Amino acid sequence: MNSLSKVYLVGAGLGSVAHLTVRAYELLKQADVLIYDALVGEELLTLAPPNCLKLEVGKRGGAESTPQVEINQLLVEYGQQYPCVVRLKSGDPFIFGRSTAEIQALTEAGCAFEVIPGLSSALAAPLLAGIPLTDPVQSRCFAVASAHEPDALEWEALCQLETLVLLMGARQLPEIVEQLFRHGRSLDTPIALIRWAGQPQQQIWTGTLGTIVRQTAHESLSPAVIVIGDVVALRPYLSQKMQWMTDE
Amino acid sequence: MNSLSKVYLVGAGLGSVAHLTVRAYELLKQADVLIYDALVGEELLTLAPPNCLKLEVGKRGGAESTPQVEINQLLVEYGQQYPCVVRLKSGDPFIFGRSTAEIQALTEAGCAFEVIPGLSSALAAPLLAGIPLTDPVQSRCFAVASAHEPDALEWEALCQLETLVLLMGARQLPEIVEQLFRHGRSLDTPIALIRWAGQPQQQIWTGTLGTIVRQTAHESLSPAVIVIGDVVALRPYLSQKMQWMTDE
Repeated sequence: MNSLSKVYLVGAGLGSVAHLTVRAYELLKQADVLIYDALVGEELLTLAPPNCLKLEVGKRGGAESTPQVEINQLLVEYGQQYPCVVRLKSGDPFIFGRSTAEIQALTEAGCAFEVIPGLSSALAAPLLAGIPLTDPVQSRCFAVASAHEPDALEWEALCQLETLVLLMGARQLPEIVEQLFRHGRSLDTPIALIRWAGQPQQQIWTGTLGTIVRQTAHESLSPAVIVIGDVVALRPYLSQKMQWMTDE
Repeated sequence: MNSLSKVYLVGAGLGSVAHLTVRAYELLKQADVLIYDALVGEELLTLAPPNCLKLEVGKRGGAESTPQVEINQLLVEYGQQYPCVVRLKSGDPFIFGRSTAEIQALTEAGCAFEVIPGLSSALAAPLLAGIPLTDPVQSRCFAVASAHEPDALEWEALCQLETLVLLMGARQLPEIVEQLFRHGRSLDTPIALIRWAGQPQQQIWTGTLGTIVRQTAHESLSPAVIVIGDVVALRPYLSQKMQWMTDE
């Protein structure tokens, strides 16, 4: 094992080079091995050197993906052979990134590692849509949850907070809306869906809990970030000049 | 007014160049005017061209700062005179950044603007301390709140969520601990304070709701990110190899 080897768990952010951190950019430029998720974006892969070994292990809602235990094993194997292994993960490695399993496998095998933060779509997608998650009057706090299993969430507590961001919930939209309504959120509550945030194919839908399911019934919504709360209604005032944004 | 002029509201992230986005880095390199918060970090200011006009308007807990209405006015005035005005804001512009007031002033004056996301310390400080905000078992959701006025928060709802991140709460630590205890969190609940996250002078304290006030009684804690929940206890397993981290 090379004593200078390191495995870097790197946040890919939104998938574009512009939204990558400087540190992540530099590591991609010198990667010997790049092990990446399906959602990280083609543009980032082109940063790696021509002789870099690239392995997709990516998870994409519904589609087949490499089991976590195999990913852990790949990281250890390559980490023991190559100086610079980059494990590129969508968004931020510590926000629904399953990094704990990978770090524990690396630690057990004695591989050095480092975690590099990235922009999480939970925060950056609303920003790019012109929606501030906080506001001095309308949102003094916000919660972030994964909604791929809506039944597992503490809806009662979540519905008492002003602003809610849900990841991985596009396929469960009707169930999410029902839970929010059942736990006291009015049908007039503003909601936004942001698909492919920060990518050229970005799409945004805005409506209310009463309208959004009908509005999006015939659309492909995944992967999307869902924002619920009055801050969604600030969008018309904060996004007028974002001409580079996709209009819905 | 120059028709190609633009005011960029840019997230400075944690204050180091490494954690800046590529887009923010490029904009700083070409800024004609740089209007920045006190907490953004000296290192970032050196990126601006030598002839760039630099104005500090920064807010620092307790210290005097430029009133928001004056900052708005500066943005409009410089935005009407210079092609590239960068308004550099700590962390992410849409997370407790008071960007709404600035954008509304720019819109009213007819100035073009663009908002560039940055790493929020709410997510990146825990990561750099080896604390994942989410975990498949221990944390399916987390909330982020500003604690500079603890009385204004929905403690009952916040205390039902597995993980809580508080910004701007270092000076209110005893009151925060009391609120958490009063609303049902056990005195054994793990808590971490991360000061100057990602900067060379980073400091971390970990303890429980029952111990943390005594542990930090004689310390300067501001600016700090506070993390509450069982995920704090994962830190020893996830940060062993982060040798570049400051040890407490």
